[in-house]
Amino acid sequence: MKKGIDQHQIGESVEQHLLIKNAKKGIASNGKPFLTLHVTDKSGEIEAKMWGISADDEAKFVPGTVVHISGDVQDFRGMRQLRLKAIRLSASGEQVNPEDFLPSAPRGRDEMLEEVNQYLFDMQNAKLQRLTRHLFKKHQQAFSVSPAATKNHHEFVSGLLYHVLSMLELAKGIAMQYPSLNKDLLYAGIILHDMAKVRELSGPMATQYTLEGKLIGHISMMSSEIEEAAKELSIEGEEVLVLQHLILSHHAKGEWGSPKPPLVREAEILHLIDNIDAKMNMLDRALERTPAGEFTERIFAMDQRSFYKPTFTE
Amino acid sequence: MKKGIDQHQIGESVEQHLLIKNAKKGIASNGKPFLTLHVTDKSGEIEAKMWGISADDEAKFVPGTVVHISGDVQDFRGMRQLRLKAIRLSASGEQVNPEDFLPSAPRGRDEMLEEVNQYLFDMQNAKLQRLTRHLFKKHQQAFSVSPAATKNHHEFVSGLLYHVLSMLELAKGIAMQYPSLNKDLLYAGIILHDMAKVRELSGPMATQYTLEGKLIGHISMMSSEIEEAAKELSIEGEEVLVLQHLILSHHAKGEWGSPKPPLVREAEILHLIDNIDAKMNMLDRALERTPAGEFTERIFAMDQRSFYKPTFTE
Amino acid sequence: MKKGIDQHQIGESVEQHLLIKNAKKGIASNGKPFLTLHVTDKSGEIEAKMWGISADDEAKFVPGTVVHISGDVQDFRGMRQLRLKAIRLSASGEQVNPEDFLPSAPRGRDEMLEEVNQYLFDMQNAKLQRLTRHLFKKHQQAFSVSPAATKNHHEFVSGLLYHVLSMLELAKGIAMQYPSLNKDLLYAGIILHDMAKVRELSGPMATQYTLEGKLIGHISMMSSEIEEAAKELSIEGEEVLVLQHLILSHHAKGEWGSPKPPLVREAEILHLIDNIDAKMNMLDRALERTPAGEFTERIFAMDQRSFYKPTFTE
Amino acid sequence: MKKGIDQHQIGESVEQHLLIKNAKKGIASNGKPFLTLHVTDKSGEIEAKMWGISADDEAKFVPGTVVHISGDVQDFRGMRQLRLKAIRLSASGEQVNPEDFLPSAPRGRDEMLEEVNQYLFDMQNAKLQRLTRHLFKKHQQAFSVSPAATKNHHEFVSGLLYHVLSMLELAKGIAMQYPSLNKDLLYAGIILHDMAKVRELSGPMATQYTLEGKLIGHISMMSSEIEEAAKELSIEGEEVLVLQHLILSHHAKGEWGSPKPPLVREAEILHLIDNIDAKMNMLDRALERTPAGEFTERIFAMDQRSFYKPTFTE
Amino acid sequence: MKKGIDQHQIGESVEQHLLIKNAKKGIASNGKPFLTLHVTDKSGEIEAKMWGISADDEAKFVPGTVVHISGDVQDFRGMRQLRLKAIRLSASGEQVNPEDFLPSAPRGRDEMLEEVNQYLFDMQNAKLQRLTRHLFKKHQQAFSVSPAATKNHHEFVSGLLYHVLSMLELAKGIAMQYPSLNKDLLYAGIILHDMAKVRELSGPMATQYTLEGKLIGHISMMSSEIEEAAKELSIEGEEVLVLQHLILSHHAKGEWGSPKPPLVREAEILHLIDNIDAKMNMLDRALERTPAGEFTERIFAMDQRSFYKPTFTE
Amino acid sequence: MKKGIDQHQIGESVEQHLLIKNAKKGIASNGKPFLTLHVTDKSGEIEAKMWGISADDEAKFVPGTVVHISGDVQDFRGMRQLRLKAIRLSASGEQVNPEDFLPSAPRGRDEMLEEVNQYLFDMQNAKLQRLTRHLFKKHQQAFSVSPAATKNHHEFVSGLLYHVLSMLELAKGIAMQYPSLNKDLLYAGIILHDMAKVRELSGPMATQYTLEGKLIGHISMMSSEIEEAAKELSIEGEEVLVLQHLILSHHAKGEWGSPKPPLVREAEILHLIDNIDAKMNMLDRALERTPAGEFTERIFAMDQRSFYKPTFTE
Repeated sequence: MKKGIDQHQIGESVEQHLLIKNAKKGIASNGKPFLTLHVTDKSGEIEAKMWGISADDEAKFVPGTVVHISGDVQDFRGMRQLRLKAIRLSASGEQVNPEDFLPSAPRGRDEMLEEVNQYLFDMQNAKLQRLTRHLFKKHQQAFSVSPAATKNHHEFVSGLLYHVLSMLELAKGIAMQYPSLNKDLLYAGIILHDMAKVRELSGPMATQYTLEGKLIGHISMMSSEIEEAAKELSIEGEEVLVLQHLILSHHAKGEWGSPKPPLVREAEILHLIDNIDAKMNMLDRALERTPAGEFTERIFAMDQRSFYKPTFTE
Repeated sequence: MKKGIDQHQIGESVEQHLLIKNAKKGIASNGKPFLTLHVTDKSGEIEAKMWGISADDEAKFVPGTVVHISGDVQDFRGMRQLRLKAIRLSASGEQVNPEDFLPSAPRGRDEMLEEVNQYLFDMQNAKLQRLTRHLFKKHQQAFSVSPAATKNHHEFVSGLLYHVLSMLELAKGIAMQYPSLNKDLLYAGIILHDMAKVRELSGPMATQYTLEGKLIGHISMMSSEIEEAAKELSIEGEEVLVLQHLILSHHAKGEWGSPKPPLVREAEILHLIDNIDAKMNMLDRALERTPAGEFTERIFAMDQRSFYKPTFTE
Repeated sequence: MKKGIDQHQIGESVEQHLLIKNAKKGIASNGKPFLTLHVTDKSGEIEAKMWGISADDEAKFVPGTVVHISGDVQDFRGMRQLRLKAIRLSASGEQVNPEDFLPSAPRGRDEMLEEVNQYLFDMQNAKLQRLTRHLFKKHQQAFSVSPAATKNHHEFVSGLLYHVLSMLELAKGIAMQYPSLNKDLLYAGIILHDMAKVRELSGPMATQYTLEGKLIGHISMMSSEIEEAAKELSIEGEEVLVLQHLILSHHAKGEWGSPKPPLVREAEILHLIDNIDAKMNMLDRALERTPAGEFTERIFAMDQRSFYKPTFTE
Repeated sequence: MKKGIDQHQIGESVEQHLLIKNAKKGIASNGKPFLTLHVTDKSGEIEAKMWGISADDEAKFVPGTVVHISGDVQDFRGMRQLRLKAIRLSASGEQVNPEDFLPSAPRGRDEMLEEVNQYLFDMQNAKLQRLTRHLFKKHQQAFSVSPAATKNHHEFVSGLLYHVLSMLELAKGIAMQYPSLNKDLLYAGIILHDMAKVRELSGPMATQYTLEGKLIGHISMMSSEIEEAAKELSIEGEEVLVLQHLILSHHAKGEWGSPKPPLVREAEILHLIDNIDAKMNMLDRALERTPAGEFTERIFAMDQRSFYKPTFTE
Repeated sequence: MKKGIDQHQIGESVEQHLLIKNAKKGIASNGKPFLTLHVTDKSGEIEAKMWGISADDEAKFVPGTVVHISGDVQDFRGMRQLRLKAIRLSASGEQVNPEDFLPSAPRGRDEMLEEVNQYLFDMQNAKLQRLTRHLFKKHQQAFSVSPAATKNHHEFVSGLLYHVLSMLELAKGIAMQYPSLNKDLLYAGIILHDMAKVRELSGPMATQYTLEGKLIGHISMMSSEIEEAAKELSIEGEEVLVLQHLILSHHAKGEWGSPKPPLVREAEILHLIDNIDAKMNMLDRALERTPAGEFTERIFAMDQRSFYKPTFTE
Repeated sequence: MKKGIDQHQIGESVEQHLLIKNAKKGIASNGKPFLTLHVTDKSGEIEAKMWGISADDEAKFVPGTVVHISGDVQDFRGMRQLRLKAIRLSASGEQVNPEDFLPSAPRGRDEMLEEVNQYLFDMQNAKLQRLTRHLFKKHQQAFSVSPAATKNHHEFVSGLLYHVLSMLELAKGIAMQYPSLNKDLLYAGIILHDMAKVRELSGPMATQYTLEGKLIGHISMMSSEIEEAAKELSIEGEEVLVLQHLILSHHAKGEWGSPKPPLVREAEILHLIDNIDAKMNMLDRALERTPAGEFTERIFAMDQRSFYKPTFTE
């Protein structure tokens, strides 16, 4: 199998198709325009500069386009950068599909959906089960491919589903340790907590915030959807209210976007599990790229800390 | 007309019916139980202690009951307190109605509703007008008597309506000064911004937070109601989304309960007008009770500041 | 009438006189010096780069100079930039006057002064009136042309006067809504609150902070001037003290530069009105430059927020 | 079996031996001295007031003494309080042992020690194992009975051991979910993280901070002990350094007492697990005392939040 | 010489004249009024309660009155309290003078004034010298008796003068260490920095904030006085401006009351010296009252810290 | 004597040996690599750019190398920059020694060590003296050349020793002013407070943080060393504990890296003296480079403030 873009060392040559994920125009200090491209395949992404571009180039090399590139990898201020020797649009006959170039979750979509379904199936409380199943079915298609964020953690195809499943598994272990937890409520909260990201974000390709994402946000959206679903399914009772609360409070603090802090035990633990899975995802990926005995680059969403990778093992 | 409880000076005798707004049991340092009552008539409220109570007294003197009191007003650590000489339940033949004892807005309910209706009538944008009118009709009954809060500002019968009308009048003047403002959007935001307080609070008598008030809050509730109303009325378009945003952002900051900061001009000004009216209400009432040349008591919701009342006039 | 620099679209040619407001030398990555110019006419300003300059150019193209430019407007990282084809000093025979190139308030200076005078004339409290009139006369000349700031809001010729008049008009409406406010005190506070900016800032051309502006600040300066004026006019009484307090507290918090928080009702409302007018000025100008359906650039002095301009109207 | 003090309802009589945990003298408003006692048995504790005490009483009823009490439970401002009818020192013939009256962990000491030993036994990395075992042996006696804190969470006999074991079990599940974690390092960090509480606190009876607890703190003490132990055992290598780092950083932030933030993956997860177990312990105990459908008292160490106990079950 | 009130141990009898510094009425839980008195002599102060007072007592025992007390010192919640056996107004024939009962600085007023004068005399810069001398003369009388604060530090007769002199001596040593410091500027800043406390506070007896103290504050007052004095003395030049800056910035931060942070080297060091002397004064007095081997009470103005007094000596 | 690099004015030619302190590779916007060098001699340092470098250049011009440079000093955005005309490695025959090029303390190492020894010699408390002398001897070699930091203050050869001696001298003056201070304890704390910087930093050349510096920090290291030394010397008693506390608390706050705030008088004053000496060092150096009548560049570690240098003198 061919080496992905992320496996190329400094100094190696590149000769392959890549997807343009981002393209930004700049003006060099000689007054000439250039493009800063972020190109990607399943293995990861790399930056490339196109110097002295024409207006035609600018129109051609846009996000979502697959291009064929030859060049080599060089070091620029401690980061890898791709020096272009040639770049052209991939031809239709080359049978390249943009979706095949996006990084995605390490597990298969259908297998993961199946596992979430099992958690749904095991719920005892009929109201929580019906509400959660209803919303899961409603958004299943988008939910199964959406990233969990535009950056920082789980920002890949099916990242949201992968994040939710990882949280469910953590929750199962924690609920065994603290049997007073209401597992149904916790599982329902986990499955729905970020589900409105399918409306907040524009989807897996060139992901950005939608207008309603910016003005309303996934937290308020999902709370409204639960209220509406309860009416549609004629479900009444405290379950509806408390489940909405879990969604509204899952960022824990006002300054992090939650209009209410957790005021129910399962709301508190939902926030803590979300936090663990996001941090472990960021740390694992940063440390994978770091040799033992060195520090990672600064991790923005972890207070700009740089983590050390020890040289010893178990 | 008879003097209200708030007009009695230190040393004067009291002989009148009063409503028990609050009653809290304590144990004196001699081991005997007592009640701390807050009793009220339209003019204001006063604290009274009932020493050495029986279990029977405890069951009888509960919030919402009208009692006949004789006693006199004395000074206790700089605050007025009512020393009881006698207290009994008012008899049914005395024709006292609890509602008649609650402080309420300085203007008539119907007159205020009429003025809000006029603002609704003058709206040009049909979508905003229909949405706002629909929710106004839905909650009109509770809205017209609800306080705006349990304490701090506008915490009296029809306080919410009085607050909204005052904000509409401020908005009218400000919109003349800055003609770029969308008046319809601003008026709709003002009328709806606190409307879900009718669900968040338990009503004008013995006002407290409801369960959904504590777990969801009036901000998220009203955003959901707008979304639902738009579906019911088949209204589509950015108006719905932006109006929801005005509601969600009207507390301005996450730490003050808003999941989004204002990101639309009218959302910003809605917050500023809300702020002005709440502060002027708190200040006016604190200064009314303060002689010229002195400082008010500390005002909790204004950073515990104590304000000076100058001795000169215009 | 000729199109101003602010009305030129991307791609259009420019051929006109412009005033150099700012000039900053840089070294390009090829080691050669260049100038970053900000050039302006009444309609607004634009950035232009002069590449490969000589020492002679550096001495010639300085702030306050009028130049004749031909070039065209291009897009640079989402901002308009002027590409120079030719630039020369405007000749004396071309009759260009630097003052004619500075952006200024949308209303005439004399008309605005007249209106402020009317507010002064209407005051009832003789002490406040005499104090305010005295200081207004003393600084009238500089006050009538000073900007209100070096950036962010009202940073144009007569910006300070325009800001004060706008605040007076807001105050008039608000005082009708809350009749307990002392209008004379409030108007006096508004007229004087920023008046020492005539000492804090260096004037309308190439505006910067003076030494006393940096070490003392306009808040402390004006408080001292009121004290001194009262002695000169033999005015005694609480009016002097309270008016000083309004000036000292108008930034509301210590971290925003006020040595005292507002402790008088009119001081509180003065701060709130100042806040509204500054924010509306920033928002109006940012939204004017933004098409409907898009977000403004980030506004620094409003917590870096980017505002949305809705597509619907009243 | 006899009912414990925590199972008595308001209005019920008490007739039993209890341990004085705390005794504080006060002066009543009639000028006479009284004692506020906190008395306890295994089930929990209750407050009692002794009015009108003599100097002799003051000397007799001190912390650590077992007394025989008859009285009844009454309500005082929403909290249970014990009204004394009679109180006397328990006689030596009554065979009461202070230790038998202290609340303690829900599991047996030896069984828990055994389980921790098993975690030690399973470690692969010889250096971490030897270091941890050495310190575990050194403090085993005190460690097995120490509370984890003076208040808030795990503040009972063997609370520290119970807390550590609960964290080890959580860690096991989490390490299965994230196989990149170094289990040995994480287990060593958990076992040692709070071990110096045996020096910081004065032990299980009448627990208070020691002088070195106040001036040095358990975090710095244990870091020093690891350094010293490594020298004693001639252990060198990064394990020592990194293990010290886990201890130093386990409170995560400077303002919470850690001189370094977590900079190693296992340090981060150690902090998160510590946080989960402390919060679940606080929540479980507060909710146990709360009927379904009501809110708990405010929990000091969880931002003073009051949590709701839902009425529905799985 | 007779023992002062501060030298009496728990259990000892008191029989002496004392000054009432403060008197506050309360209502006991039996409904009867009482007075909380703070009585003082030069050695310190103590609290005393007068139970069951008459209206006549209330009028008689007011701040500023000297009384003759017999009673004994007892312990109340860890603080000393005076139990009254008898209290009466001191008769005119007893020749007691209120001033003789106030705690005051440990050094004589005239001797301290003389030393400050010496610092003035040694100044080289004529402008700074004349300005400082002028203001020193103007306020010398009040300055020489004023406390430096109402509580926390140097809150005794001549406390301000004592504080200033202590700072001058510190400054002398520090200026030797850092010869780049401008001693004249620093000394002038120290002498004037708190001088307007003579206007901010009401004087040494029953010290409280004046109206201008609350609304303007000593920082702004002294800056204005320097400006005015410079005009009166026809002194021009940067000295005036920079000296004003030292005054304005001596609280270092906006949230601590300074409208400008220190922007001149001597302003920075003035703040640091002020800080040292205030803290050492608070610490010395708290530690004097604390036996070796114990902790002081919490010191409010030092982040509520409680300090340990070691048992060893040099 | 030849002029140092810091004494060269804009426009002057440079022809001398310099030490490379730092070298960072960049890519110019024309795609070609360049080096940003920081070169230094005893007088100070300057930045230089090497354009269009080869791989060979990159390997040759590394930190720690002495080079011979000819070029001239030019202005780049308000900072001095060295334009290279020629650069080559200094030949071994030229007898240049890297140590001779590093900026160092203004006083001689041996003389300073001697003075610190005198402070040690004068101590009265034998335990504190033995502990301090032991650790001083142990680290004397590294201590005498170590910088006190990598940047901000005292970041030069022997900077740590110079800082400690300056603090001792300040302490001597302050202890005379406040005789209640325990001089021995304070001197011991000063001598040891930063001593573990010899382990935290990599030494005087190309100073950076070591691994244990990053993960443990000098504060925790020195506390452990004191504990260990006390065992080694069989010193017992509160002196050990309190001295550790001085080290642990000398950064004063958790967010500044101290696990405990100062809780002993000498700990508080140690922090204040440390603060004064660091700030005076930063200010003195920034002001030395600034002409009278101008402001310094922003000083990072003093809240980014820019300080004014007055034009008048004593």
